[in-house]
Amino acid sequence: MKEKSMDRKRGRVTLPSESNFLEETKEMLDRLGADALRDSDGTKLDAATKALDAKIYETYFVSRGHNEFAKEHMEECQQLYLMSKRALATADQVELSFMDGYYDEQVAPDYVHDVKRWWEVIDRTADQVVLAEDWDVRQEENQVVVRNAVPFHEYTVSFLVYAVWDPTQMYNHITNDWGDVPHDIPFDVRYANSDTFAKEYLKQWLIDNPNVDVVRFTTFFYHFTLVFNSEAKEKFVDWFGYGATVSVKALEEFEAEYGYALRPEDIVDNGYYNSTFRVPTKPYLDYMDFIQRFVAEKAAELVKLVHDAGREAMMFLGDNWIGTEPYGPYFEQIGLDAVVGSVGGSVGCGVTLRLISEIPHVKYTEGRFLPYFFPTAFYEGNDPSIEAQVNWLRSRRAIMRKPVDRIGYGGYLSLAYKFPKFIDYIAGVADEFRLLYDNIGGSRPYAGIRVGILNCWGKLRSWQTFMVAHALWYKQIYSYLGVLECLSGAAVDVSFISFEDLTEETLDSLDVIINVGDAETAFSGGRRWGEEEIVSAVRAWVYSGGGFVGIGEPSAYEKGGRFFQLAEIMGVDKELGFTLSTDKYFKTQMEQHFITEDRTEAFDFGESMKNVYALDQDTEIIEYSDNEVHIASHAYGKGRGVYIAGLPYSFENTRLLMRSLYYAAGKEQEWERWNVTNMYCEVNVYPEKNKYAILNNSGEAQKTWFYDGDGAKEELTLNGGEILWREM
Amino acid sequence: MKEKSMDRKRGRVTLPSESNFLEETKEMLDRLGADALRDSDGTKLDAATKALDAKIYETYFVSRGHNEFAKEHMEECQQLYLMSKRALATADQVELSFMDGYYDEQVAPDYVHDVKRWWEVIDRTADQVVLAEDWDVRQEENQVVVRNAVPFHEYTVSFLVYAVWDPTQMYNHITNDWGDVPHDIPFDVRYANSDTFAKEYLKQWLIDNPNVDVVRFTTFFYHFTLVFNSEAKEKFVDWFGYGATVSVKALEEFEAEYGYALRPEDIVDNGYYNSTFRVPTKPYLDYMDFIQRFVAEKAAELVKLVHDAGREAMMFLGDNWIGTEPYGPYFEQIGLDAVVGSVGGSVGCGVTLRLISEIPHVKYTEGRFLPYFFPTAFYEGNDPSIEAQVNWLRSRRAIMRKPVDRIGYGGYLSLAYKFPKFIDYIAGVADEFRLLYDNIGGSRPYAGIRVGILNCWGKLRSWQTFMVAHALWYKQIYSYLGVLECLSGAAVDVSFISFEDLTEETLDSLDVIINVGDAETAFSGGRRWGEEEIVSAVRAWVYSGGGFVGIGEPSAYEKGGRFFQLAEIMGVDKELGFTLSTDKYFKTQMEQHFITEDRTEAFDFGESMKNVYALDQDTEIIEYSDNEVHIASHAYGKGRGVYIAGLPYSFENTRLLMRSLYYAAGKEQEWERWNVTNMYCEVNVYPEKNKYAILNNSGEAQKTWFYDGDGAKEELTLNGGEILWREM
Repeated sequence: MKEKSMDRKRGRVTLPSESNFLEETKEMLDRLGADALRDSDGTKLDAATKALDAKIYETYFVSRGHNEFAKEHMEECQQLYLMSKRALATADQVELSFMDGYYDEQVAPDYVHDVKRWWEVIDRTADQVVLAEDWDVRQEENQVVVRNAVPFHEYTVSFLVYAVWDPTQMYNHITNDWGDVPHDIPFDVRYANSDTFAKEYLKQWLIDNPNVDVVRFTTFFYHFTLVFNSEAKEKFVDWFGYGATVSVKALEEFEAEYGYALRPEDIVDNGYYNSTFRVPTKPYLDYMDFIQRFVAEKAAELVKLVHDAGREAMMFLGDNWIGTEPYGPYFEQIGLDAVVGSVGGSVGCGVTLRLISEIPHVKYTEGRFLPYFFPTAFYEGNDPSIEAQVNWLRSRRAIMRKPVDRIGYGGYLSLAYKFPKFIDYIAGVADEFRLLYDNIGGSRPYAGIRVGILNCWGKLRSWQTFMVAHALWYKQIYSYLGVLECLSGAAVDVSFISFEDLTEETLDSLDVIINVGDAETAFSGGRRWGEEEIVSAVRAWVYSGGGFVGIGEPSAYEKGGRFFQLAEIMGVDKELGFTLSTDKYFKTQMEQHFITEDRTEAFDFGESMKNVYALDQDTEIIEYSDNEVHIASHAYGKGRGVYIAGLPYSFENTRLLMRSLYYAAGKEQEWERWNVTNMYCEVNVYPEKNKYAILNNSGEAQKTWFYDGDGAKEELTLNGGEILWREM
Repeated sequence: MKEKSMDRKRGRVTLPSESNFLEETKEMLDRLGADALRDSDGTKLDAATKALDAKIYETYFVSRGHNEFAKEHMEECQQLYLMSKRALATADQVELSFMDGYYDEQVAPDYVHDVKRWWEVIDRTADQVVLAEDWDVRQEENQVVVRNAVPFHEYTVSFLVYAVWDPTQMYNHITNDWGDVPHDIPFDVRYANSDTFAKEYLKQWLIDNPNVDVVRFTTFFYHFTLVFNSEAKEKFVDWFGYGATVSVKALEEFEAEYGYALRPEDIVDNGYYNSTFRVPTKPYLDYMDFIQRFVAEKAAELVKLVHDAGREAMMFLGDNWIGTEPYGPYFEQIGLDAVVGSVGGSVGCGVTLRLISEIPHVKYTEGRFLPYFFPTAFYEGNDPSIEAQVNWLRSRRAIMRKPVDRIGYGGYLSLAYKFPKFIDYIAGVADEFRLLYDNIGGSRPYAGIRVGILNCWGKLRSWQTFMVAHALWYKQIYSYLGVLECLSGAAVDVSFISFEDLTEETLDSLDVIINVGDAETAFSGGRRWGEEEIVSAVRAWVYSGGGFVGIGEPSAYEKGGRFFQLAEIMGVDKELGFTLSTDKYFKTQMEQHFITEDRTEAFDFGESMKNVYALDQDTEIIEYSDNEVHIASHAYGKGRGVYIAGLPYSFENTRLLMRSLYYAAGKEQEWERWNVTNMYCEVNVYPEKNKYAILNNSGEAQKTWFYDGDGAKEELTLNGGEILWREM
């Protein structure tokens, strides 16, 4: 790494440590210039380590890990609504063995509260609630018996359970074979005893742990929805799910406040459990808001205790983070000093970096980088520095746009210590990070285009679109998540807007709106595109000069003879079979176009989109193959629309997207400003600091033409991974 | 061809002829054993030809080709409802140039009738009708001006036109550059003068043409919807479309009879014009019935005139055939002697053969085979016998199941005459056809399985599913139409049932129900699957032992947590994004399965279907690739479901479908009865005739094991195209 020869500095780096590793820890603090130490899953810092000249973070669990309390207050145990499997009625009575498929060490039916009030039996074939008088519960068999059933209808019961085992501890417990280690029982601070306990325990803990500088909350109260099957394997995982926030008390308080009662179905939602892919309903949005306000209020009380004790409060973005959404309206009230989260994963290094680095209302953010110091990567014969480099180069793009304030690692330091090449590499990373952090110095880089990502979630789910389990690959998401990964390190300003944000003020702050996703999902927008005000607002804005880039099934909602409600903007619609009788004459790909001008590789639309066709001769067909359009553009008043069939992350597609944005915004003439011709390279400009940087995002040397702010060009060669810093 | 050495017979074959071709015509009648002669587009039979020892067919146009009448009665000209292009309002007034994109030599706006009553302006963005007081027509500019428009809404006007040029004549006129040949003006027999004229003219024509034996109606009154664009190219084509049946008088009579008025939108239907892919609405079904009854009544009057003159009445299945649907409830009343139709086309030789051969209530059916004797196939250097062989071998499969009563050809006989190899080939075809017709002798062959194709159209559209323009290839249909092409020559009984046919009686007559098509189309069924009675009826039937084969998006209708409403039957559903949070563990393809046991080629699912997943461990995953299921099966009570992602026509896929049907029906043990092991071969058994035939459907020699009715096997070799006839 180039910067190695520079003066080394210290700071902005956190390392894990462990007991009986003092001298090596000191050495590593020095090698990496690290200034903070933390514990991890399975490690503890001993007193000598805590006494080192470094900030000490310690993991803190609020609502689990206190079974001495929880067992005494099982009535305050956390709850979930679950939906049973479907049972087919073959006669007029049908039995629902509702625990079938669930893990009885994780969840236990709630027979404490009145099942007739809190449970709901639904005829899923008729889509109707079964009268309470037509069913009963056989507790000893965990069965619901439905009478007066309609033969060959399918029935489910939505039932309340107690969540008697924290799912993260459960996962670690089972994976690591912890035997008779007690099962952590999560309790609910909505109840008075739990609330008091949580605060009192923290107070005492702060007294008992004077050497901890940073309380690393992991996290607060409610775990994202994570339910196991009867073989103790993951059955349902939604990193955004509110499933575990439910309780009878919460439902009662909701009704008192909102004036209407939630039904179990408002939570269970056909078994979809309000996945973030669902266009959210009003009751669900109300419920989220209700939970967020409660969580913010309660979390703020704990943070205050930490501050009163003279320490910092850091939140780990994960586990029990539901209700703390950092981009939500109540996050500021929590008063946290810092948020730390995991960077990387198979589908989005840049995305997860920005997800953390953009978090507002904290003093600092910290990204925990891969690989985790676990035997999965650190085994004999493997070179973990390879994974580290891939992750770093992809994350670094995003850091150049908006750095986290700190980087860190997790796991067993003693393990990583045995891999000197790796240590060398991350020592270089630490130096490079500090250098670029200093160079950027809190300034915002130049952006050629201001982009708004439009979906049902808007700001709340900034950099969190299309995720299911945190940063894992899913066939149905990678072609769309790629858009965000491309943008995460590109010279554009990115904001996330919801359909409620289509105001003049917001629209005025944008050059291009991107709408991306599958039909009927919250990300393309589903039925929201049936609302005339929404459609008109976007049309009016594009017509007056805005740019619209649609990817996948943008604005899809079959109505009034169109599937894409913005078909006239993009110049394409999708054939559902209803317009096969209409001749489609427009099939000729343009010989060249700004968007694909420098494309040399074959196109990769990922899962792509079938049956998209051009509306008329004014559609610019930029890619046509297999009897369908995959890239197109169309003028619309003073503005333009662009359609792309899918955009998995790659260097090539980043370039394609950037050109699409410039074209949609009508700024092609600005393309050769602060730009490079080689797609493996990128330019970031920091006007406030009078600096700019040319990055080589690849591991190999690259030759490129570079255009400065006036369009003057210069040929450059960069080493693999090099950042060339220059004064303006 | 094997049968050439046999005794030649005469009959069952129609040839085209033309003027001044007498001796060659005689020779050809003899060579092919033809017993009928016809005229064609562009040819006439002279008196000497008509005097030959052959039945004489002559083309007869009822409602066009009589401009001397039509011009005097332009108020009885046929009409259409058309939808204008969408116009974007950018202010509170918007102009709709409604003729934009239409061909003014084909259609002319109807300013005779009150536009405020008969036209409809629709705000397609709000999906609302605009008040009549808010718009006016500027006749001189063919414009509608909408006031009080909502900016950035899109508007259309549905307007009535007179159809002043018959679209088939128009197509021939333009294609063949007929210059100043007058444009045939179609008139509407719903009006008194036209009705009288049609009958009187026919009466006189029958007197004037004593040598015509068969009046070949081409066809009766209303052309399928065929509209041209402003460049006189095809703009909209729907072989099933009722567009041209509309008139003010029809709409008034409909209202009087049904007690409600149709809106223009009931015809225009968002610009989809009630494509057969649309799940039909009640008003549209009412309207079709209304037209069918009228057409049957009026056509019967003409047929009676033909019969009274001692001639036969034959209908050409095409052109002005709307309302005559041969599988409809009123067809029998027309009293026709015969139907002739075109066999072949790029997507379905067998399908189009069965479409004709299964027509009930006529004395005989006739298939017109390809190639047509036109210069497109008969040019120097081309061997038209190649196309003839492909078509014949594919059609022959279907003939073996249910023969047409006659075969024929069309075009210029003088042209074909110059290709002796071709003449030799079709002479052999004629002999083979007569032989197999005699052998089959009106008996129904053995069927291993009774199949019902379930869709919104049922019997009415027997062998006509998925068609847009007659038998043309469309990307969106070939993967589904292949199912019918496979079945057309397979040893199964095929019926077409609608959702209204799910009665005990109909279901008892079936072994397997097939549901095939894209979501929301009339062929998969769309919203009909939201009806609990329909879902329950199919479930109950399968549960009691029936078989269900779903292809594409069968039973698709998102409701109650499922996309495929019969997911539990097939063991699969399609991921729309809402259940990504639910872990999908079932991904392992079975090592072997009855359905794919003898598959050697790679699978071909055509357009295939994405994101289909197995529900649980009971799903038999038969093909899994690219992270999705393409073939699966599942037990359901005593019955079974099978899912297939798509099934374009091929020998391999015919086999796959047949195995799927046997498996779904639980009849695997009957597979080795009256069957062969070589997929290029098929067996047809005629118990009433004590005969069976083993076909080689390929052009090359094939070796195969043959299983007789007791399962005894025997190895056979068949020459290319051979049919081996045997006594039982």
